[in-house]
Amino acid sequence: MYSQLTTYRVCYADTDQMQYMYYGNYARLYEIGRVEAMRALGFSYKAFEEQGILMPVLDLQAKYLQPARYDELLQIKTTVLEPPTVRIKFKYEVFNEQKVLLNEGFTTLVFVNKLTNKPCKAPADFLSALQKHFV
Amino acid sequence: MYSQLTTYRVCYADTDQMQYMYYGNYARLYEIGRVEAMRALGFSYKAFEEQGILMPVLDLQAKYLQPARYDELLQIKTTVLEPPTVRIKFKYEVFNEQKVLLNEGFTTLVFVNKLTNKPCKAPADFLSALQKHFV
Amino acid sequence: MYSQLTTYRVCYADTDQMQYMYYGNYARLYEIGRVEAMRALGFSYKAFEEQGILMPVLDLQAKYLQPARYDELLQIKTTVLEPPTVRIKFKYEVFNEQKVLLNEGFTTLVFVNKLTNKPCKAPADFLSALQKHFV
Amino acid sequence: MYSQLTTYRVCYADTDQMQYMYYGNYARLYEIGRVEAMRALGFSYKAFEEQGILMPVLDLQAKYLQPARYDELLQIKTTVLEPPTVRIKFKYEVFNEQKVLLNEGFTTLVFVNKLTNKPCKAPADFLSALQKHFV
Repeated sequence: MYSQLTTYRVCYADTDQMQYMYYGNYARLYEIGRVEAMRALGFSYKAFEEQGILMPVLDLQAKYLQPARYDELLQIKTTVLEPPTVRIKFKYEVFNEQKVLLNEGFTTLVFVNKLTNKPCKAPADFLSALQKHFV
Repeated sequence: MYSQLTTYRVCYADTDQMQYMYYGNYARLYEIGRVEAMRALGFSYKAFEEQGILMPVLDLQAKYLQPARYDELLQIKTTVLEPPTVRIKFKYEVFNEQKVLLNEGFTTLVFVNKLTNKPCKAPADFLSALQKHFV
Repeated sequence: MYSQLTTYRVCYADTDQMQYMYYGNYARLYEIGRVEAMRALGFSYKAFEEQGILMPVLDLQAKYLQPARYDELLQIKTTVLEPPTVRIKFKYEVFNEQKVLLNEGFTTLVFVNKLTNKPCKAPADFLSALQKHFV
Repeated sequence: MYSQLTTYRVCYADTDQMQYMYYGNYARLYEIGRVEAMRALGFSYKAFEEQGILMPVLDLQAKYLQPARYDELLQIKTTVLEPPTVRIKFKYEVFNEQKVLLNEGFTTLVFVNKLTNKPCKAPADFLSALQKHFV
């Protein structure tokens, strides 16, 4: 299992008139969570794209337990639950400053070869770096 | 069962550099879908809020089958699968102009009394209007 | 002078906790306004891109006179004030249902040849269609 | 003159299919810039709202000099050019990692008393903290 923490400050753009962070904006947090989790491991999604690997999202699930509020400094805990194959699944937990769990989400992404537009295996070095966390 | 169709034109703001509609923007489509489904039935979410009923989202699921592309005139089919209680579940199907299903989603929303901040039953007239579709 | 009207329904995603449409979201309205103004004239920005013409934005100005509110059906009036050269300037006026002017904006866009990444003249047929409105 | 620097990582949600940060998303950066500039001075916009002071945006200007790209760690330089009255004007300069100026913007905000919905003076302690930078 591999987990990584990153922070996110809720801005005014994120809020809605219910004074909650709009439910659609969590997808942005999940994106930031997984990209920073990859970066902490030494990999950049930008470099993947430059090498011809895209990672579109296949599915998304989110549970809204408590609202996130304006100006809160959220903590996003991103977890890879199992080693990726042609797909990779991320779990996200969003906490407020009091460590209350506000939101829980999952996404599945697929590795796609940009040239062939077909699914492909995770890059070998990325897989290898992740597998060290699953022994 | 109650279903309603509405259209949505993908704008540049919705796209990402993969030339897909960004995965987080479907939540906006779902919102538009359910609000227009309510409006077609004679109800406005805005009026609900003015009457002291909020409808925050409890959970969200989305499956990304095919990408939506810039300038496509999408069709959002919103369905209420069963009569609401204190909760209401919506299903969304997003089609392109060729009637290909691009995306499928679900959300559960809860009726909340704004004053007490507690869950409450769906407004009686809204429930009654919906129930006509479940005989 | 060429003007065109299009409508836009303010959704929950657009609102912020001040119960206004977030000031950054008007750029999306302006985009919709100019794309629909082009479409009404028989041209699609999507087709321009497919023909190798990009139109990035060079500058933006916006005046926020009155807030736009949730669920309002806004009217966006888009105007081309003078025939384009390598640049095109759009004016936007956003009205609520009572025809009150809420917002006024301007953008300048430049025609760019996608292959050379250099500014280029507006497509001849587009220019010609616009010029009919400036006699 | 009071200036403050903050950073912003361009995420996928910010990009559009031109592979630029969408022109409408700079307003979010400006918001983050000014809120962090206030925080660095010891003030929080959130606290202003709790004390009954709102700060809606009156106008916005933006110049797009060079595109911001995915995953760039931008630097936002926010400047208050003169002491506020009932209004405050911010200047924003957005630089990439090579210190190239990508974007320049201005916003004017007005201090509004939430109860009366009328313009009011800037809070005295905020004004006093800023004035130290204008001697």
